[in-house]
Amino acid sequence: MTQTSPSGRASAWLEHFGAALGRPDAAATAALFDADCYWRDLVAFTWNICTQEGQGAIEKMVQARGADVAASHFALEGEATEADGVVDAWFTFETRVARGRGHVRLKGADQGDKAWTLLTTMTELKGFEEKTGTKRIKGAEHGVHPGRKSWLEARAHEQQSLGFTEQPYVVIVGGGQGGIVLGARLRRLGVPTIIIEKNAKPGDSWRNRYKSLCLHDPVWYDHLPYMPFPDDWPVFAPKDKIGDWLEMYTKIMELNYWGSTEAKKAHFDEATGQWELQVEREGKTITLRPKQLVFAMGVSGYPNVPHITGAERFEGEQHHSSKHPGPDKYIGKKVVVLGSNNSAHDICAALWEHQVDVTMLQRSSTHIAPSDSLMELALGGLYSEEAIKSGIDHHKGDLVFASVPYKIMHTFQIPVYEEMKRRDADLYGRLEKAGFMLDFGDDGSGLFMKYLRRGSGYYIDVGASELVANGSIKLRSGINIARINAKSVTLSDGSELAADVIVYATGYGSMNQFLADLVSPAVADRVGKVWGLGSNTTKDPGPWEGELRNMWKPTNQPQLWIHGGNLHQSRHYSQFLSLQLKARYEGLDTPVYAQAAVNHLK
Amino acid sequence: MTQTSPSGRASAWLEHFGAALGRPDAAATAALFDADCYWRDLVAFTWNICTQEGQGAIEKMVQARGADVAASHFALEGEATEADGVVDAWFTFETRVARGRGHVRLKGADQGDKAWTLLTTMTELKGFEEKTGTKRIKGAEHGVHPGRKSWLEARAHEQQSLGFTEQPYVVIVGGGQGGIVLGARLRRLGVPTIIIEKNAKPGDSWRNRYKSLCLHDPVWYDHLPYMPFPDDWPVFAPKDKIGDWLEMYTKIMELNYWGSTEAKKAHFDEATGQWELQVEREGKTITLRPKQLVFAMGVSGYPNVPHITGAERFEGEQHHSSKHPGPDKYIGKKVVVLGSNNSAHDICAALWEHQVDVTMLQRSSTHIAPSDSLMELALGGLYSEEAIKSGIDHHKGDLVFASVPYKIMHTFQIPVYEEMKRRDADLYGRLEKAGFMLDFGDDGSGLFMKYLRRGSGYYIDVGASELVANGSIKLRSGINIARINAKSVTLSDGSELAADVIVYATGYGSMNQFLADLVSPAVADRVGKVWGLGSNTTKDPGPWEGELRNMWKPTNQPQLWIHGGNLHQSRHYSQFLSLQLKARYEGLDTPVYAQAAVNHLK
Repeated sequence: MTQTSPSGRASAWLEHFGAALGRPDAAATAALFDADCYWRDLVAFTWNICTQEGQGAIEKMVQARGADVAASHFALEGEATEADGVVDAWFTFETRVARGRGHVRLKGADQGDKAWTLLTTMTELKGFEEKTGTKRIKGAEHGVHPGRKSWLEARAHEQQSLGFTEQPYVVIVGGGQGGIVLGARLRRLGVPTIIIEKNAKPGDSWRNRYKSLCLHDPVWYDHLPYMPFPDDWPVFAPKDKIGDWLEMYTKIMELNYWGSTEAKKAHFDEATGQWELQVEREGKTITLRPKQLVFAMGVSGYPNVPHITGAERFEGEQHHSSKHPGPDKYIGKKVVVLGSNNSAHDICAALWEHQVDVTMLQRSSTHIAPSDSLMELALGGLYSEEAIKSGIDHHKGDLVFASVPYKIMHTFQIPVYEEMKRRDADLYGRLEKAGFMLDFGDDGSGLFMKYLRRGSGYYIDVGASELVANGSIKLRSGINIARINAKSVTLSDGSELAADVIVYATGYGSMNQFLADLVSPAVADRVGKVWGLGSNTTKDPGPWEGELRNMWKPTNQPQLWIHGGNLHQSRHYSQFLSLQLKARYEGLDTPVYAQAAVNHLK
Repeated sequence: MTQTSPSGRASAWLEHFGAALGRPDAAATAALFDADCYWRDLVAFTWNICTQEGQGAIEKMVQARGADVAASHFALEGEATEADGVVDAWFTFETRVARGRGHVRLKGADQGDKAWTLLTTMTELKGFEEKTGTKRIKGAEHGVHPGRKSWLEARAHEQQSLGFTEQPYVVIVGGGQGGIVLGARLRRLGVPTIIIEKNAKPGDSWRNRYKSLCLHDPVWYDHLPYMPFPDDWPVFAPKDKIGDWLEMYTKIMELNYWGSTEAKKAHFDEATGQWELQVEREGKTITLRPKQLVFAMGVSGYPNVPHITGAERFEGEQHHSSKHPGPDKYIGKKVVVLGSNNSAHDICAALWEHQVDVTMLQRSSTHIAPSDSLMELALGGLYSEEAIKSGIDHHKGDLVFASVPYKIMHTFQIPVYEEMKRRDADLYGRLEKAGFMLDFGDDGSGLFMKYLRRGSGYYIDVGASELVANGSIKLRSGINIARINAKSVTLSDGSELAADVIVYATGYGSMNQFLADLVSPAVADRVGKVWGLGSNTTKDPGPWEGELRNMWKPTNQPQLWIHGGNLHQSRHYSQFLSLQLKARYEGLDTPVYAQAAVNHLK
């Protein structure tokens, strides 16, 4: 392997990098980066999720953390590749307490290769590895153990004692996909955990949605940790099938899942350093005393229902999209759907399919991303059968995705949506002709950036756009409901629209609201706004944060964490949240570097 | 690649083989085999599971089947290897109707390489492939489909109609692991199937066993099709955990599983060419009319309880091992266990662990295989973490296993048990000192051959042998129960033994008995003895059959099939049974070559 091969260049850079960190020499480390550089760390160096932007920030971080982290054993993993003058390389490394995996993009420079982007992630804590493969338990302890408990007896004992005679170390509030996968990781790490869920069964939060709902992301993007979907799983899984999978997964992973249980009040006791969480379980009030409290109630968990004059006078039925049952009971009725994002489109399409007279009210412009184009142009490289054939399964895909710093992610995205505009010009043209207001995000970076910045403003088109374009779904755009009457709505342009049913597909409020309700407004303010990057685009005010606010990392409220996101994020980031919790459970020192400040409350 | 490299030699042989079959030239094909040769075919060439032994048999088979099969496209898969003068190679091929995979062992001869063993297996039927990977369904049918059914509605409709307004093509009697995995394969192949199970829930047949039961085979050997166990699954899964897995698997695979349903009577209607199966489902009698009837009630499903004089006078409790609940209720009692195989040892050990006074009555010699030695010496090469590291997962392992003809399998096994004798000499010595009667099979070929030949006669030692050796479990050997008294048993040597409980760990009767009970003694006799190779060893009378009698292949009763075996066999052979059923469902021509004769009734 010559120094000029991609692998040779990557190995050489890693050697210098390891040496500089080994001393540690912060200046020398920073000097190995390009002037335009980013070091994204997922827990391994900072006990935080943060990105150092520029050599100055990198030098500062190494100064503060280098000696304590004691990173070593940097080794190239597989062969490095080169494209457009950028060398792409994977590597493994160790720290004093953990093992990790990383990725680097190198740019050749006169004074040798310099890092453009660097990703470092923690994969496992030394001495606390998951019991997999050769480390798996025997199951039948061979030999003789007088009075031994069978697996079933041991499991029953745990279920009877945890939360009563023994306290869990972690309580996860919210038993949707996020809570379940985090619970699974903590289970594997041996951290006593209880998951609290309002609904009776795992998966109900999916089952309770409108009946036509299918995942909008394809199967390759949606795997849960440890148990991939079978290889005949539909590309877009129907909600009830996902519900069954989550229920099965929860049982197989042996999670302590408290269904039909509502979190009532939480209070952090400074004296004991633990939470007091009151929950109501099948009528009985129980107080749990965990050390760590995780909110996993969904990025979109808090229904946002606008207060419209006259709503109380409406004689028909009105509900938020999250409560919409599906079309069957509305046949023959006139339905008005306020909103024009995913739920609005799905609900309108299902209503139309059942010959219901339905009108969509579009208040502001919406980004439309045809599903096939999205899969092929945006996700295909990392999450598809083709990706798998080329050696990129979802584990690898998650890391590649994570290796792109948020600061420059839009520059990777814009070309994708430029291509989409070309490809789907016909549909876009007909939509605009029908009066539909389109956008591609403030900077044309499209769907995923909108999702990260504001978590709203788009529809992944699985067919409804055609119905809007051809008028099957009636459209009124650039409009809002000014007043609600007994049997109609008056729109902001003064026109009136007969209505038997109003569906508020008006999205969701801030996750922060959960904290205000369950803990206190003071604690909610201490934590501050959740989600968003500080991109200074619509609904994502600056200053720049560099990472999603408060997600999967320490908040300013000790021992309070927030977990959520789509299936991909829940899968990938639950790994890093679980390692942060495990380290604290084991009493390891976890100095958090660059704790983010609170710049916005909601 | 030179002709002298293993891959070169294998490719050359495959070329000649393909050419000879292509003409087809039976004599030339046979001439490519060594004088000592075996061609094992799993459905691909014979629509049967059979092994042609010797050039004559091979020539005869090719004469009969060569033209119809029209095998082609023989291509080396991966690199061939050579060891001890034998070249080992994998290959793929096609027939007129299917795709297949094969394995060959070549021996160099003066006139070029000759095949020693050949395996041909059918992997899929052309035009009827499973909808996996790129072929998977969308799930959400994009676009608009007025009045479309949701996945949940479609599934509910199927459950309401199948077996009532629509008849299944296949009914599987027995919803244990065998019925479930066959059901899963048929589901993927789109063959309407109902599984009938006496117990309420999938997995109950495991849950209902004695509480200390864990699998005696390690996890790598036990995977179900399509959904491997997670990588932290215990080496020896406890029975209730397996029960939960089977229940979850049945739901996820969307099987039509009728629990709490008993098959009452089956009759084959020659006129309509279909079965009339009366089942009692939750009290109601329902008649099912499938074209194909599969018995999957377990190799060891039919409790064998000896009739012993005085049994009716016994004042204590007596039950077959299959009904044994575990030790808890017998504390302080005197328990006599009749038998010395797996169940007997497990039950005795659990009783001793609960300080119960327990005596094992050994009637005849038993093969003891210490679990660790068994895993390392017998299974390790194909089913272990090490095997996986060396590229042999359970799919590959199953094929390697299948590639060894039964006729010579014992010669592969004997050295394993010779080594076991050396390794575990101390334990064996102490067992014999304690009076325990040991054997390693008539020809020293050990556990797996005993399993194939007679399905009994061994204990996989997970600790109980130590208890027998050190006298913790009392042993009386070379003995039987002559008479049962009110509070004791009189043994065949005249001695008396006080007893509050008698456990009959006396094994299981012939699967054939199921047929006699459910269909008729005439049909049972038409099918004949099930299981066993005709090895002319204890409990496996000749003549030589070459394959397991009646398992997974056409029986002499049209449209009646028998499925079963351990998890490994259920997984692997369900593939070939499902393909035989699918071919018939699609109306393909399936001429069965070399239908086995019935040489024994029970």
